[in-house]
Amino acid sequence: MTSDSVTASIPLSTVDAWWRAANYLSVGQIYLMGDPLLRKPLDREGIKPRLLGHWGTSPALSLVYAHLNRVIVEKGVPTIYVCGPGHGGPAMVANTWLDGTYSELFPDVTPDEAGLRRLVRQFSFPGGIPSHAAPETPGSINEGGELGYSLMHAYGAALDNPGLVVACVIGDGEAETGPLATSWWGNAFLDPRTDGAVLPILNLNGYKIANPTLLARIPEEQLVEFFHGHGYEPILVTGGFDGEDPMRVHERMAAALDEAYDRICRIWTSARDAETLADRTTEKPPVIVLRTPKGWTGPVEVDGAPVENTFHAHQVPLSGVRDDPDHLAQLERWLRSYRPEELFEADGTPTSVLDALRPVGGMRMSASLHTNGGTVAPLDLPEITPHAVPSDREGGADVGATGVFGEWLRHVVAMNPSTFRLFGPDEVASNRLQAVFEETDRAWQLPTLPTDEHLATDGRVIEALSEHLMQGMLEGYLLTGRHGLITSYEAFVHIVDSMFNQHAKWIESASTVRWRKPIPSLTYLLSSHVWRQDHNGFSHQDPGFLGVVVNKSAEVVRVYLPPDANTLLVTMADVFRTENRVNVVVAGKQEQPSWLSLEEARAHVAAGASAWDWAGTAAPLGLPGAEDPDVVIACAGDVPTFEAIAAAQLLRERVPELRVRVVNVTDLMKLQDPDHHPHGLSDEDFDALFTTDRPVIFAFHGYPSLVHQLTYRRTNHANIHVRGFIEKGTTTTPFDMVHLNDLDRYRLALDVLHRVPGLEAKPGMRRLADEWNQARTEARAYAYEHGEDPSWITDRRFER
Amino acid sequence: MTSDSVTASIPLSTVDAWWRAANYLSVGQIYLMGDPLLRKPLDREGIKPRLLGHWGTSPALSLVYAHLNRVIVEKGVPTIYVCGPGHGGPAMVANTWLDGTYSELFPDVTPDEAGLRRLVRQFSFPGGIPSHAAPETPGSINEGGELGYSLMHAYGAALDNPGLVVACVIGDGEAETGPLATSWWGNAFLDPRTDGAVLPILNLNGYKIANPTLLARIPEEQLVEFFHGHGYEPILVTGGFDGEDPMRVHERMAAALDEAYDRICRIWTSARDAETLADRTTEKPPVIVLRTPKGWTGPVEVDGAPVENTFHAHQVPLSGVRDDPDHLAQLERWLRSYRPEELFEADGTPTSVLDALRPVGGMRMSASLHTNGGTVAPLDLPEITPHAVPSDREGGADVGATGVFGEWLRHVVAMNPSTFRLFGPDEVASNRLQAVFEETDRAWQLPTLPTDEHLATDGRVIEALSEHLMQGMLEGYLLTGRHGLITSYEAFVHIVDSMFNQHAKWIESASTVRWRKPIPSLTYLLSSHVWRQDHNGFSHQDPGFLGVVVNKSAEVVRVYLPPDANTLLVTMADVFRTENRVNVVVAGKQEQPSWLSLEEARAHVAAGASAWDWAGTAAPLGLPGAEDPDVVIACAGDVPTFEAIAAAQLLRERVPELRVRVVNVTDLMKLQDPDHHPHGLSDEDFDALFTTDRPVIFAFHGYPSLVHQLTYRRTNHANIHVRGFIEKGTTTTPFDMVHLNDLDRYRLALDVLHRVPGLEAKPGMRRLADEWNQARTEARAYAYEHGEDPSWITDRRFER
Repeated sequence: MTSDSVTASIPLSTVDAWWRAANYLSVGQIYLMGDPLLRKPLDREGIKPRLLGHWGTSPALSLVYAHLNRVIVEKGVPTIYVCGPGHGGPAMVANTWLDGTYSELFPDVTPDEAGLRRLVRQFSFPGGIPSHAAPETPGSINEGGELGYSLMHAYGAALDNPGLVVACVIGDGEAETGPLATSWWGNAFLDPRTDGAVLPILNLNGYKIANPTLLARIPEEQLVEFFHGHGYEPILVTGGFDGEDPMRVHERMAAALDEAYDRICRIWTSARDAETLADRTTEKPPVIVLRTPKGWTGPVEVDGAPVENTFHAHQVPLSGVRDDPDHLAQLERWLRSYRPEELFEADGTPTSVLDALRPVGGMRMSASLHTNGGTVAPLDLPEITPHAVPSDREGGADVGATGVFGEWLRHVVAMNPSTFRLFGPDEVASNRLQAVFEETDRAWQLPTLPTDEHLATDGRVIEALSEHLMQGMLEGYLLTGRHGLITSYEAFVHIVDSMFNQHAKWIESASTVRWRKPIPSLTYLLSSHVWRQDHNGFSHQDPGFLGVVVNKSAEVVRVYLPPDANTLLVTMADVFRTENRVNVVVAGKQEQPSWLSLEEARAHVAAGASAWDWAGTAAPLGLPGAEDPDVVIACAGDVPTFEAIAAAQLLRERVPELRVRVVNVTDLMKLQDPDHHPHGLSDEDFDALFTTDRPVIFAFHGYPSLVHQLTYRRTNHANIHVRGFIEKGTTTTPFDMVHLNDLDRYRLALDVLHRVPGLEAKPGMRRLADEWNQARTEARAYAYEHGEDPSWITDRRFER
Repeated sequence: MTSDSVTASIPLSTVDAWWRAANYLSVGQIYLMGDPLLRKPLDREGIKPRLLGHWGTSPALSLVYAHLNRVIVEKGVPTIYVCGPGHGGPAMVANTWLDGTYSELFPDVTPDEAGLRRLVRQFSFPGGIPSHAAPETPGSINEGGELGYSLMHAYGAALDNPGLVVACVIGDGEAETGPLATSWWGNAFLDPRTDGAVLPILNLNGYKIANPTLLARIPEEQLVEFFHGHGYEPILVTGGFDGEDPMRVHERMAAALDEAYDRICRIWTSARDAETLADRTTEKPPVIVLRTPKGWTGPVEVDGAPVENTFHAHQVPLSGVRDDPDHLAQLERWLRSYRPEELFEADGTPTSVLDALRPVGGMRMSASLHTNGGTVAPLDLPEITPHAVPSDREGGADVGATGVFGEWLRHVVAMNPSTFRLFGPDEVASNRLQAVFEETDRAWQLPTLPTDEHLATDGRVIEALSEHLMQGMLEGYLLTGRHGLITSYEAFVHIVDSMFNQHAKWIESASTVRWRKPIPSLTYLLSSHVWRQDHNGFSHQDPGFLGVVVNKSAEVVRVYLPPDANTLLVTMADVFRTENRVNVVVAGKQEQPSWLSLEEARAHVAAGASAWDWAGTAAPLGLPGAEDPDVVIACAGDVPTFEAIAAAQLLRERVPELRVRVVNVTDLMKLQDPDHHPHGLSDEDFDALFTTDRPVIFAFHGYPSLVHQLTYRRTNHANIHVRGFIEKGTTTTPFDMVHLNDLDRYRLALDVLHRVPGLEAKPGMRRLADEWNQARTEARAYAYEHGEDPSWITDRRFER
């Protein structure tokens, strides 16, 4: 399965020299404090006091790097390098320094001995650089921390980059994760006509931290079937075992890469020349399986125990080097085995022999524009005005917010035909964004049937039943400078909690890296949310993602709970213009009133939180008496807003003299104080809205504790009483869901009754409490009898 | 690949009758309100007002059920049914009613017409049962909500159940998820000598909600390679397309199951008879690929558009049946096509023809003891006394808490040789639990090498680099009544946030199901936590899982932050005795002081939070003056505790007259009020510890907001000032981590200085503030220079 014809114009001895230099510098970064070129015999003071880093994966990472450089120089195919085993940070740093990029981006790490001294010292050192490939690493779009996302990042990066090869090294440890395991199917979505190619390179070094790996231990014929089964043609490269001369491995690796690139180019050419799908080649995309010893070229044994090609090579093969003269000597032999004197000039610059292997400018993988935010302009956004709906008070009918948004989104797709993508775990239509299918299709390279709907090789929508894969491909797309949106059921977005975490951390770290361009924001549209999963039941009812989100850096995270269709439109048009953010937008798909006209929605979104005077009975802010409402009914989220407005209406009918202010919060972070979040309302503004001493009944979309967490510093916090999801759910009716969680209009009105002094003494109020309890009970009884809510629940045409 | 010899003593016509009855009842549950046997012509009133449910997957679920019943009756092999497409709830309910189990467990759903009326009405109906397979479903151990976990649950269930076949139906939608994709490798851990078998049955019905599925569209030979690649021998069953007579499919399915069970039994027998590993058969375990039309036997077309065998069959194929007479008529034809008059006796009981297909008692899959908490006794736990370490004040040396726990855990493993398992994502040794390998090994069925360590076919430890797979197998093990522990890096446990959510919801729901036995608790040991990932950097620093956990039902969740080794021992011995809980225990692996003797640790764990009088300067609780400390320094988590004690020591040295009370919280839920959590301290006890009006400086392991979220109702909340992780991290030293996040001893002492009235006026205090700031700065400068913390940071032999 390996080709044996190589026509290398760059001698493989040069590739080997690069590889040795990178290996030398990898070991150097793990161990050395000074004297990076070993001018003197190695001594205690030259060794770092704390030995950190991952040696085991580094040699293979550098082997791939050196060989990719050869291919780029020889074939001129733009290529980027996604490093799955990113904990091999020393290798990635070493190669990007050899590329020259590192010194260009970090001018104090010069391409000479002084720079090398900084280079080795800074690695995994306080005040230095992380131990893993990270935003600080040139050419990286994949953090080397939590494993599993390299291949999905690669597939996302390749979308709409038709000339690009995304080489993706995957460790055999990472290959065991669920997200990686399903990423192999990324090939079902990449159109070889309009997209680039992903070249997965699975490095079987055999071991994880302390265990062998599964894929390294299955028989080779099974491994071949594994890849055939996923639609790839594997190219196997095995070598370096039992002291095999690396030059033999270089020959095999060069041949394998030539074969892989030739295959990719044939697939591209065929797809681009073909007039019909049937004319395209059926050749499968290549995957390279590179089987090399863990810690290859490192110590074979330490203290008589095998290290190379065992899991003991995972991190630092030689420990206690400062205090163990034998280990110190072994380290020096190891370092000198790379023959540094051949690899560096007298002043410490890399030997000029390596020049031939260094691609020019942005063709260097470490300097690719793609991996630094790409080259894409801001989104071209359609006007929202034509899509706005008349508000309820303007006589508008009920509409589903996401459906209205979908009509606008359709035009976003149309106006950005190669720089915007929509991703969803088989829920784009379920979340009512199906209008986009008037404009485009779902990407799909597998066979189709006449009964299929909206499938095409070059569709702009990507759907697979994996939140992981969808989020990861979107991340890869964003990290390379393009734009997108992911939609998910609210409960199941928890599946990608950790991916959100890692992406938010990436953005936060990247924004401190001077040369990193900002990237388009990651925006979630969470629909099918907790309150309208009454039919799907308890497992589908979970608003906890918001709590995960607000823990991350305030510079990065934004949370929006637009209460209606126009507010959603304005919000999305805003967030689509942001960079370096994670925007979480929760909006319902069910029909409901549009509370705000477009103009009102614009003002509301700009404010983030405002009093809806028309919904309450208190004097409007700024008018006489405004400072003195009896109670504030606050709300955030579409269903809580509906109940809050209904509660205010009930109170208006029964106690017209009660001064009720209704406040809607659409930008959740307005609640937090401005010291903690840049969107936070000033205390003055917060106090003006929520008062300093009146009861606040807060109807909230998520867990009540989140509102307390955000507002605990506010003057009036002790008077804020929050109703929200309290983990009560089942398969029932929409009203029974709010009833079960004490968020219904009657409960809210009773909360007011119990908290406004003197209200219970008003004529008839005690009777009203009984009436309201009876109404809740009757509503449930009706639902249990008839299977749906009584019409007087859903008819909200109450007088205003 | 399919066998064609079937020796069925039960006629396949009986299997077909069962299948038709189950299909009839599935449709009935989706549509019918009354008259379940269609005694009268179907009319509007007989139709539910809200049509909910998933028809598409149901026929195949019932086909498998009926055929498994045949195998169980004929072969006598105990079998359970894990239903991946659990949203096919109607099918699972129908089959368990036909089994008789449903009526035994829910006596009002009798095995007659009256019971059938309740059965069809209750489905997805307010006050009824969930629309998905759920804890309420007899024989279920897999919630049909969030997809992806069926096969890992199956593998967990099969462990240590050597006679059991766990049949696991996997939808082709679910098969696209990451967790499912890596679950195929469960076969690498199952020992055919000591464990049962998993029989995966992949149902390719071709479609998800609105898309075709990947596995259904790849060529069949690729599918075969896919399974060979994962180490299975696929048995292909295709049928039911284009109106094919179901009897032909029954023949194929019966043959396939016979072949699969025969193969499983051969593998079992060979492994159990073999004297050495080499003597075992190399036969691969079977997987059945069942390719049938989505919505098979349902409407072929509706309103002229194809439905059967398209995604339109996913949920309710015929809509608006109440108001559309054509649809109503089509529904009636559909229902009557199953010939209910042949399937039910006059009184509505299932026809006696089906009796032959009904296994006896607990052999029914719906009545298996395994799926209802199993038959296992509580864990046999070793004494902890021999493992306790002397406390620091008793002259004990620093120890790593998890290492001490590991020595005890080793004995837990030994004393429960077939009912306790340890699961970890390649981090058991990294988290310092390696003592267990003195007693057992890691389970591993793949080839081994001489350099391997601690691998054996029947090891009690399971490790793969997938948090998903480890958590899912443990869940399956617990749900079938056995015991276990999962260990993970703290940051990466977020990977299974959603699995935790779903499991917690399962427990909460299951505890309301009268006949469900409690199951052993799910216990997490999170080590390598946020404060000691200084070497791995920002991506490894995340304490947010605690916030996810506390959102779930207070009846279920418990969070422990034992500050030292003895406290960890006592905590683990306690939580290993619990049922129906999720216990989250965070403990460090690094060497640190043991603050408490075993006796003190027992008292502290029993209290959950207590004043450590020896660490402070205030009068002990209960003694004169105790009510009047100047300040409370509270702490939770091992590193914050270290800093808090150091801060108290600093203050004692500088301001000996200051009355400082040190409070350690080891049971986090003690902070919440007892209305919100059963562990919550009474307000009286809380106020006694934390005072009602003195400043409380709280050094917390996680995000500070979590403490506010838990304590916002407490009297003294406004005076609680929390320091914790504020998302500041990188690769640095341990002390720099606390410094970066303002959690270090100096910052805590300054917080006291700023909050205790009059303290700044004390002689020398202003100077001390400068000194302390200088100390922090010097510590960082030293670290940046030398790569490690200065010794005066880590030497905590300060006077006490």
